[in-house]
Amino acid sequence: MSRFFTSKYSSLTPYTPGEQPKDLEYVKLNTNESPFAPSPSVAKKVEQEANKLMLYSDPECVDLRKKMSKVFGVKSENIIMTNGSDEVLNFAFMAFADQKNPLIFPDITYGFYPVFAELNGIPYQEIPLKSDFSIDINDYLGKNKTIVIANPNAPTGLLLSLEKIEKIVSSNPQNIVIIDEAYIDFGGESAIKLTEKYDNLLVTGTFSKSRSLAGGRLGFGIANEKIINDLNTIKYSTNPYNVNRLTAAAGKAVLDENDYYLNNCKKIIENREFTKLELENLGFEVLNSSANFLFAKSEKIDGETLYKELKKKGVLVRHFEKERIKNYNRITIGTKEQMETLIQKIKEIFKEKQL
Amino acid sequence: MSRFFTSKYSSLTPYTPGEQPKDLEYVKLNTNESPFAPSPSVAKKVEQEANKLMLYSDPECVDLRKKMSKVFGVKSENIIMTNGSDEVLNFAFMAFADQKNPLIFPDITYGFYPVFAELNGIPYQEIPLKSDFSIDINDYLGKNKTIVIANPNAPTGLLLSLEKIEKIVSSNPQNIVIIDEAYIDFGGESAIKLTEKYDNLLVTGTFSKSRSLAGGRLGFGIANEKIINDLNTIKYSTNPYNVNRLTAAAGKAVLDENDYYLNNCKKIIENREFTKLELENLGFEVLNSSANFLFAKSEKIDGETLYKELKKKGVLVRHFEKERIKNYNRITIGTKEQMETLIQKIKEIFKEKQL
Repeated sequence: MSRFFTSKYSSLTPYTPGEQPKDLEYVKLNTNESPFAPSPSVAKKVEQEANKLMLYSDPECVDLRKKMSKVFGVKSENIIMTNGSDEVLNFAFMAFADQKNPLIFPDITYGFYPVFAELNGIPYQEIPLKSDFSIDINDYLGKNKTIVIANPNAPTGLLLSLEKIEKIVSSNPQNIVIIDEAYIDFGGESAIKLTEKYDNLLVTGTFSKSRSLAGGRLGFGIANEKIINDLNTIKYSTNPYNVNRLTAAAGKAVLDENDYYLNNCKKIIENREFTKLELENLGFEVLNSSANFLFAKSEKIDGETLYKELKKKGVLVRHFEKERIKNYNRITIGTKEQMETLIQKIKEIFKEKQL
Repeated sequence: MSRFFTSKYSSLTPYTPGEQPKDLEYVKLNTNESPFAPSPSVAKKVEQEANKLMLYSDPECVDLRKKMSKVFGVKSENIIMTNGSDEVLNFAFMAFADQKNPLIFPDITYGFYPVFAELNGIPYQEIPLKSDFSIDINDYLGKNKTIVIANPNAPTGLLLSLEKIEKIVSSNPQNIVIIDEAYIDFGGESAIKLTEKYDNLLVTGTFSKSRSLAGGRLGFGIANEKIINDLNTIKYSTNPYNVNRLTAAAGKAVLDENDYYLNNCKKIIENREFTKLELENLGFEVLNSSANFLFAKSEKIDGETLYKELKKKGVLVRHFEKERIKNYNRITIGTKEQMETLIQKIKEIFKEKQL
């Protein structure tokens, strides 16, 4: 830390992204990326757009929101496009939470929520998940606090039904409820349709997972128009051109070929169920995931050791140090071949260690 | 504003980007973009990169910083890459200014400085430029405040010599001095070389102007390693993947062909001096610009009227409502043809109005 750094942020603990080692070609199952490249039209469209790069991008993302509107069945005015969904989450925390409107979210969830809260000086309370890692919705009913819930949750993969989400939203009419749907396309039912009925609901989403654009940084928020306007006030005070021309072009190409991406989701779901069975056959306890990852532990080997042994063998999974989940690993679902490699490597480790 | 919007930001006035009307093909001289498309290798490189978009970008921007290092003659550790230079400016305001370290900057300068200050709850003082719009460096010596100066300044285009910049930096050893060099390539001498000598100097830059990537959103900060680490603490608490894969690929291609962009700067400088003479021949008072724009007024016609009349004729320039500069217009320097059109249209307006 330099001697100039503000005391305001001196105790800030930044988010730790999943490792991206450059020493080896790993089977990369640690950051919940899609194993499938975007459709070829994406490359074509960004190539064409490159010749216009000397001109600023459209801060209003008019064309992109029009296409979003068709795919998601809401009006353009109900959509904000952002630099990944991290940005819309940060904007929402800034806009709708403060000392008087503290945040609540599960103790085990996306690691960026507490970071954004601390960054913005927002008090927050982490509500323990039940012992089976599920969310008890009674913890979120009539709370008079700003609520953020990842659905499906990460890194557990567990899904809340739309009915339960609606109960949380309707019981907190004085506060914003943010439903972070980064992983919704892998088996969940989106709450987007509820945004017409509830003016306190903000649904966020990303092109990073089901839409193969993690490296492109495109996220969005869908809500009542007034909520979107508030988010735009924050956007135009931080980064009006947050979505660059290339990303916008890639996003539009992706939306034009929605079926390709939905079909990839089907494959990932198949690979997930295959991997779950294989892991269970090896004695793992695996949570019922509705996401593009599995959260699993084995009585035979602790989480950190398994993570390290797999890394030695060229397979990266994500291990968290947090006490409650330190025996688990989060395993991204890749191609069938990648998942077979994972299982093979685990078998090798078990054999070597005579487990 | 929704009923949920935090009182913290309720009086925030967001930045207003230059208009981007979609009704007509304008001669666009209002947002200081380059009239020259990026070199063809940019399109090729982003097309290649598109096939890797399912994978996150490198949060450390290792390859990009290596190339930056060569072009700018500093170590990789002294560089942070950001989503446009707006982002590094916001990060710097967050990291190095607060209630105890308020900001000072000129009253006439980049309009985002007061917005970032208000967003972050930082007190600020606007120091009036002299009557000729130049900066009196005595106003910035030994101030014990965080200082931000655009050099050349916008929208005036006036340049401070490196000697004067150094005096400001060396006389404020207890505070960060930010030199915003968005327009330095059009005739100024960069303060980057001073970052080795002074640990309180942060130089920011952008690929949006001289490097034809306004639509790609790529900016940077260069400073002492500790300053860069502090900025990274903010980055990893807001947007670790702030530079997406496509932008990084475009930036690397641009750095590989630095001469092409430097040559474009020469052309723009030539066109600027041509336009300045032509405007002066029409009776305009034109400031001595070291940027890719001119700041000009005429006794014959007020700034707003000229802006509106030019817009009717398909030429966009930037007019600011601010009292001190409302008789001026900021005119981006485009191609020779675009500047000839501008002059032609002004002549037409003068003729029609019998001025």
